[in-house]
Amino acid sequence: MRISELGEATGVPVHTLKYYLREGLLMPGRATSRTRAEYGDEHVERVRLVRALVDQGGVSIAGVRAILDALDAPPPSRHDLYGVAACAMPTPAGDRPVDAVAVALVEDLGWQVSPDAPALHSLSAAVRAAEAAGVGLSPGLLRRYAEAMRGVADVDLTVAERASSPQEAMRTVVIGTVMVDPVLLALRRVAQEAVSARRA
Amino acid sequence: MRISELGEATGVPVHTLKYYLREGLLMPGRATSRTRAEYGDEHVERVRLVRALVDQGGVSIAGVRAILDALDAPPPSRHDLYGVAACAMPTPAGDRPVDAVAVALVEDLGWQVSPDAPALHSLSAAVRAAEAAGVGLSPGLLRRYAEAMRGVADVDLTVAERASSPQEAMRTVVIGTVMVDPVLLALRRVAQEAVSARRA
Repeated sequence: MRISELGEATGVPVHTLKYYLREGLLMPGRATSRTRAEYGDEHVERVRLVRALVDQGGVSIAGVRAILDALDAPPPSRHDLYGVAACAMPTPAGDRPVDAVAVALVEDLGWQVSPDAPALHSLSAAVRAAEAAGVGLSPGLLRRYAEAMRGVADVDLTVAERASSPQEAMRTVVIGTVMVDPVLLALRRVAQEAVSARRA
Repeated sequence: MRISELGEATGVPVHTLKYYLREGLLMPGRATSRTRAEYGDEHVERVRLVRALVDQGGVSIAGVRAILDALDAPPPSRHDLYGVAACAMPTPAGDRPVDAVAVALVEDLGWQVSPDAPALHSLSAAVRAAEAAGVGLSPGLLRRYAEAMRGVADVDLTVAERASSPQEAMRTVVIGTVMVDPVLLALRRVAQEAVSARRA
């Protein structure tokens, strides 16, 4: 199909598609003349992925590029899949060191996590921000939240392990993490109402 | 303190403070002359809360106003605290009806949730977006995620029940939900690495 048809198939304006081509988020089509190129199903799929990441995942263009690079260069084994994926994924880390509260939490739970994991920086920043808004998170409270989120991570890993190839596993880890985040936050709110109704 | 001192105490520029005053996000100070007003600790606290919601919670100005209104007018009892809070809180709901998959999930779990709860709209939209990005969420998978998030909601309710007044409970529910979201997402990533390391 031509670029105008790719636009129709995905609902994305042609000038946006050209922007994605320039930014390297969309691979070039097969050139059929000096000014024309032919696009296929893989382009439709890629455009949908980019749109979902940007519109729903709230990922920046630079973040999308990092995710796509990670998908194109999966790690040789699955052992460090989450470590590689975590470094590829956009995280609002910040450059401050990891707070003692995050280090203590991980030790307390007996979790093996790299001390410079981006997620520990994100965790520190998020706990600080909550405290600035008057939401204190004691070590005991943080531990209970962490245990619930380990349940989420268990499901994540089960899905990733079903993947038929390292490429597929990497895709599942990266896209699944970003796109399931809003699902989890919505489920939290639904569950709050359900638990509240049950206790009332 | 004067408005310039309020700016120094909170690290927020004076023109932003004036914007908050115009938008009704910050209550007026006590007028000491025709052009001057005196601000106190409650203003410092309010400015910090607004900044945390906007900068860390990613809440829009309209969303902040809805949250502040909810805090100022808590419900008479705690029974429907989460229902009221959910309607006050900014949710990227959308106007499409709730999908059958969300309705079936809630029924399957035996959760009592209002069929027009904003969270069910958010859930529908998030599941659709994940599917558009190639992340299929089967009913079984969604149920496992929902059960993990019920663990989070149990912790949320326990914290809210500790509150000493309906006002305090409302504050805990609304601010706690928005500000703990990023903590949970960071914990999910930390837990992914920990579970991945354990299984490897």
